[in-house]
Amino acid sequence: MRILLTAGGTSEPIDQVRAITNHSSGRLGIGLAKRLLADGAIVDYVTTATALQPLETDNLTRHIISSTNDLSQTLGKLLQKNVYDAVIHSMAVSDFTPELSLSQEEFLAAINAEVAKNPHQPLDEQRLQKLVEKLQQPTEKKISSQTSHLFLVLKQTPKVIQQIKQLQPDTLLVGFKLLVGVSKEELIHVAQENLKKNQADFILANDLESISGEQHLGYLVDSAGILAQAQTKSAIADMIVTALTKRLEEKK
Amino acid sequence: MRILLTAGGTSEPIDQVRAITNHSSGRLGIGLAKRLLADGAIVDYVTTATALQPLETDNLTRHIISSTNDLSQTLGKLLQKNVYDAVIHSMAVSDFTPELSLSQEEFLAAINAEVAKNPHQPLDEQRLQKLVEKLQQPTEKKISSQTSHLFLVLKQTPKVIQQIKQLQPDTLLVGFKLLVGVSKEELIHVAQENLKKNQADFILANDLESISGEQHLGYLVDSAGILAQAQTKSAIADMIVTALTKRLEEKK
Repeated sequence: MRILLTAGGTSEPIDQVRAITNHSSGRLGIGLAKRLLADGAIVDYVTTATALQPLETDNLTRHIISSTNDLSQTLGKLLQKNVYDAVIHSMAVSDFTPELSLSQEEFLAAINAEVAKNPHQPLDEQRLQKLVEKLQQPTEKKISSQTSHLFLVLKQTPKVIQQIKQLQPDTLLVGFKLLVGVSKEELIHVAQENLKKNQADFILANDLESISGEQHLGYLVDSAGILAQAQTKSAIADMIVTALTKRLEEKK
Repeated sequence: MRILLTAGGTSEPIDQVRAITNHSSGRLGIGLAKRLLADGAIVDYVTTATALQPLETDNLTRHIISSTNDLSQTLGKLLQKNVYDAVIHSMAVSDFTPELSLSQEEFLAAINAEVAKNPHQPLDEQRLQKLVEKLQQPTEKKISSQTSHLFLVLKQTPKVIQQIKQLQPDTLLVGFKLLVGVSKEELIHVAQENLKKNQADFILANDLESISGEQHLGYLVDSAGILAQAQTKSAIADMIVTALTKRLEEKK
């Protein structure tokens, strides 16, 4: 059994000393890796420098990435090189990456100049997009700390998870969906939409408000609904690997 | 000798799963702590959960903080409780913290409504500030990932370093100034301005482009100019502790 496993959280550079990071301790990833290695799997483990990491062994190779762009390239290479029975994508991936940063003075000057061109025509997406493109400069070395306010424009990152089935339609894909403070119904509903959109076979659905250290409520969702649930990180790891192994047996 | 030492980088929450972080491995902090403990100092070590950390010993107590606001409170408490011979403030502290996040749709609606009030009067700082205040909501649980662009408004954080001499005018203060890709002259000039503004006794001035692993070019600057320089993290730790010890002897 060969598995591609991602864990940790990406970091999107604002400048050379600051970044937008997604929180993730990496502990669930370590639990998954242990459980997979115990089952004799060969694991490619993609994570970030600041996450907790499992030790490398003969059967586990680590690949360190930082940004969503890095992640996309590393997954692309691995998926073209190796055939995976399953991909478990537990990494917290940034939805947005910085496109532009402006001081308050620069922001006001840009908006006022754009408005002055046609004061009675409201700004729309097209005009705003052109303005952002015009103002865009290569990532600054270090943004100024002199201005009273900083304006950051962030753009959507590409959906890395959607690469996976495009490159390996036959692999089993486990995605993760984290929400904060929603009902169980909404969580499952969003997870199932996510499953469809990303061609995932399973989604581990969880809510930040039900996570505290090793305690971690997770629902394993497939197209039919909730398949199983677990209350701790190690029970989630067990639940995922058990469901994957069963589905792989059925596929044979 | 009792020392307050900060290391690592702060993290400013955007929502419950994302933050703006300042990079800092924490390795220089560990080097400083080791050198101070070897000299028999008692150390309060303030750092972040993701930075590398020295082990706690009888003579070293760790205090874990996350945001600039946390840091300010923790330093305030420690400086009111203990008298320090010196404070070495090597933590990379965020200059800005998120005040507002808007989807592209919300951003356009807000700007257009404000412009429409008086289309021929350019937006100025006062109007913009009022607008930001009006739109401000408590930190969202998790920002939407549905919009094509996200607009973040960040405000300046309080200058934590300026608390230090206010609370303990007699302590020796070592500040840190990191720039990126500037000349040696500019680096020293900015460090000396920083020294004055923050009532520091020394500034360790360094440039990100002269840091690579253990190699780390640092200038120790005081009001007279460059006092000493070092090429590695451990040599920087030595240089700082040597200069502090000498200055403490002279004060007696």
